[in-house]
Amino acid sequence: MLPSRGGAGRARAMSTLETMAHARMVDPEIGDLLAELAEDDSLDEWQRASVRIFKHDYDKATRVPPDLVGALAQARGDAYQAWTEARPKADFEMLEPHLEKLISLRKQEADAVGWEEERYDALLDDFEPFMRTSEVARMFDDLSAQLKPVAETILDQVGPRQRFLTEAYDEETQERFCHWLIAQIGFDMEAGRVDTSPHPFTAGIAPGDVRQTIRMERDNVFASIYAAMHETGHALYEQGIPDELRDLPVGRAPSLGVHESQSRMWENHVGRSREFTRFMLPHLKEYFPSQLGSVSPDEFYEGANRPERSLIRVYADEVTYNLHLVLRFQMELALFRDELQVADLPGVWNEKSQEHIGIRANDDGDGVLQDMHWSIGALGYFPTYTLGTLYAAAFYEKASADLGGLSTDLARGDGSRLHAWLNEHIFQKAFIKPGKELGEDVLGKPLTVTPFIDHLKTKYADIYDVSFSD
Amino acid sequence: MLPSRGGAGRARAMSTLETMAHARMVDPEIGDLLAELAEDDSLDEWQRASVRIFKHDYDKATRVPPDLVGALAQARGDAYQAWTEARPKADFEMLEPHLEKLISLRKQEADAVGWEEERYDALLDDFEPFMRTSEVARMFDDLSAQLKPVAETILDQVGPRQRFLTEAYDEETQERFCHWLIAQIGFDMEAGRVDTSPHPFTAGIAPGDVRQTIRMERDNVFASIYAAMHETGHALYEQGIPDELRDLPVGRAPSLGVHESQSRMWENHVGRSREFTRFMLPHLKEYFPSQLGSVSPDEFYEGANRPERSLIRVYADEVTYNLHLVLRFQMELALFRDELQVADLPGVWNEKSQEHIGIRANDDGDGVLQDMHWSIGALGYFPTYTLGTLYAAAFYEKASADLGGLSTDLARGDGSRLHAWLNEHIFQKAFIKPGKELGEDVLGKPLTVTPFIDHLKTKYADIYDVSFSD
Repeated sequence: MLPSRGGAGRARAMSTLETMAHARMVDPEIGDLLAELAEDDSLDEWQRASVRIFKHDYDKATRVPPDLVGALAQARGDAYQAWTEARPKADFEMLEPHLEKLISLRKQEADAVGWEEERYDALLDDFEPFMRTSEVARMFDDLSAQLKPVAETILDQVGPRQRFLTEAYDEETQERFCHWLIAQIGFDMEAGRVDTSPHPFTAGIAPGDVRQTIRMERDNVFASIYAAMHETGHALYEQGIPDELRDLPVGRAPSLGVHESQSRMWENHVGRSREFTRFMLPHLKEYFPSQLGSVSPDEFYEGANRPERSLIRVYADEVTYNLHLVLRFQMELALFRDELQVADLPGVWNEKSQEHIGIRANDDGDGVLQDMHWSIGALGYFPTYTLGTLYAAAFYEKASADLGGLSTDLARGDGSRLHAWLNEHIFQKAFIKPGKELGEDVLGKPLTVTPFIDHLKTKYADIYDVSFSD
Repeated sequence: MLPSRGGAGRARAMSTLETMAHARMVDPEIGDLLAELAEDDSLDEWQRASVRIFKHDYDKATRVPPDLVGALAQARGDAYQAWTEARPKADFEMLEPHLEKLISLRKQEADAVGWEEERYDALLDDFEPFMRTSEVARMFDDLSAQLKPVAETILDQVGPRQRFLTEAYDEETQERFCHWLIAQIGFDMEAGRVDTSPHPFTAGIAPGDVRQTIRMERDNVFASIYAAMHETGHALYEQGIPDELRDLPVGRAPSLGVHESQSRMWENHVGRSREFTRFMLPHLKEYFPSQLGSVSPDEFYEGANRPERSLIRVYADEVTYNLHLVLRFQMELALFRDELQVADLPGVWNEKSQEHIGIRANDDGDGVLQDMHWSIGALGYFPTYTLGTLYAAAFYEKASADLGGLSTDLARGDGSRLHAWLNEHIFQKAFIKPGKELGEDVLGKPLTVTPFIDHLKTKYADIYDVSFSD
């Protein structure tokens, strides 16, 4: 909604608010109050959780020297600016010195905050509080080992692109369809808005005010539809946080990975299911009769699930997406273990791209420079996308077992029983406990990669009539 | 943009920010800093003005005891709530005890803040800083004496409503026309937005981010058009505040009256002029050929300027509008001089309505309860509407004399020379001095009611071929 000349004013306002928020956060009085509350037996479990979370955040904030906070802000600004110029020129050397500086500062910050097993723990904790690197690394090892052969088997089967996948779809008509779809799967339009933006996102301002955005791609109607369902997953979570908790530390999802489980679930497990695509097709045909009039439910389903080897993560499909994450996680870990130098990133990127995805970029613009995350210092963030994928599969498997007949619901376009289950088991729990513990409560066992791998095998055995060796 | 269930969350956020802002405002350290800056010879004139304004606001804020601040907030909330229920029922007694309480508290507040000549000065100062009641009262006396006979002469001439004034105009088409019009008269669409809302308003977030809203009335196309021009006047002012002053106390208009001069000028002196309506008509005909195809420029001009005796201020025309304000100002003044009791408001309202406007309401819903201002404690606000009207006429007269040939500009729909003049003489001056002083600088003499009265006489002598006795 920001007018093009409004950026400077907003940046000033945000900077003022962030400076004030930080000053309040590190106020010694907060430390005294937290110490007092930690001894208070009269607190209920929500209040105890709030104190625990706030203490965790307070300790992290106070351990970083003010000079380092300032240097990090500056380095982030410089590196991001360099990235915006380096990416279109595919010139990694323009970014290199700034990224070098930023990563060096983030190492100092991690050491100042402290960690138990290894330095990367401190980075991961910003996005997956209380999670250890060793647990994530084990999961990535399993995933890498199991996903690669499955993906290769699937990718060998993929035929040519069907014609309806490349036709033009009027953006305004897509937008109307997406609004209908988002309401259909349970987003409360009175407790939020749907607007458009260049990059879709969801912002939970309050349970009664959740803003999500969508983006229409003229030549890729599935990209628009599944981005909308992805964001709706995030938005349902935000609308489900109990209102009375909203302004407390406990009034949010316990981690980005758990949050991402919802976007992935509604996008892939609901939205790309045979049943839901069958439900959706006749509705979409009403909006696009000329493009889709002669498309069968099987063709539509196959089109919604057509994988391919591609360079750019954000356009990757359900099968190959997490291979992009494997390479990023391995490189981040090596950087923070001092096993990899910033200067070597482009070469290692290309090797790993060949190894994991099976192709390599023509230049660094589509390679190591494709994501902005590193340039803003968001290290430890990428693994949460994969955790989200794994949680989505595991939660969906559990919900299916608990509820029974979920695919019959989806064939009617009815997500209400699933929504109610998620609300009870996940949304209403907010941040009562760390993501890992919440996940184990919900699943009755620790998270593994098995539900996700099984999901892919079952889906693609059906689509391409292949079998997978173990 | 707020979803219907988002109000509670926003109210909490606003309350937090306001509490924090107030706590910072009354911090004794601010007083020490202001005392130090008052002695500082190295400040430039903008900085000196900022210190003077901030000192003025600081003194007012610190003189009100915290208990009274809290009681006022509570009384405002209660009275506003009562008003929302009382107005549809036209039941003044539902509001009376709450308004009684609120006005009593505002008297205490005025006495705590302090005043030199009379208590109402303290209220007026919130909206017209440094302005005295005696000056405004003199202006209202003149206005009341001169406007009433002029208005009566004009109102006697008004014929039946032309058909095109009551036809239906598609709202979406009106909205497209208003967007075109707003850009045409100089609003920078890259430094702001135009949206719709039930009550049009303008919010200047930053010079590069000015938000204005419009409202489309299906059965009253002129109401939509002139509300849009009115808000554009406010918006041009906000876009003209120098960027480098924006976050300083000096970076705003010096008063609501001066701000309102811009909305009134673009609405009435530009928008309702014979030249501009002649320019606008063929454009509007492109949007509404069936309603306006056969309407002549003279009919259109007359329609845009058709006055009538009406009950509701917000729908009043240029001729009668300020008569509504005369009665409100007289009643506010009497209340704060302890010459009028809250319980007597409805009776006095009806008498004064008959006296000044020539009609009286059937019930209090269309009478004393029609405006929300008093119920939120906004007393001292109404006179700024009239000051705006008087400034608009005086500034426009001066700009016309300085620039020459302004009506030729308007006949081409070209407000750019006027805009540049306003920018130089008013917008760029921001709050460098009090509104009254700025006005005298611009005009080269004190503000009087003469330019406004002359403007009405000239316009209506031309429209209705009447003459006015002196």
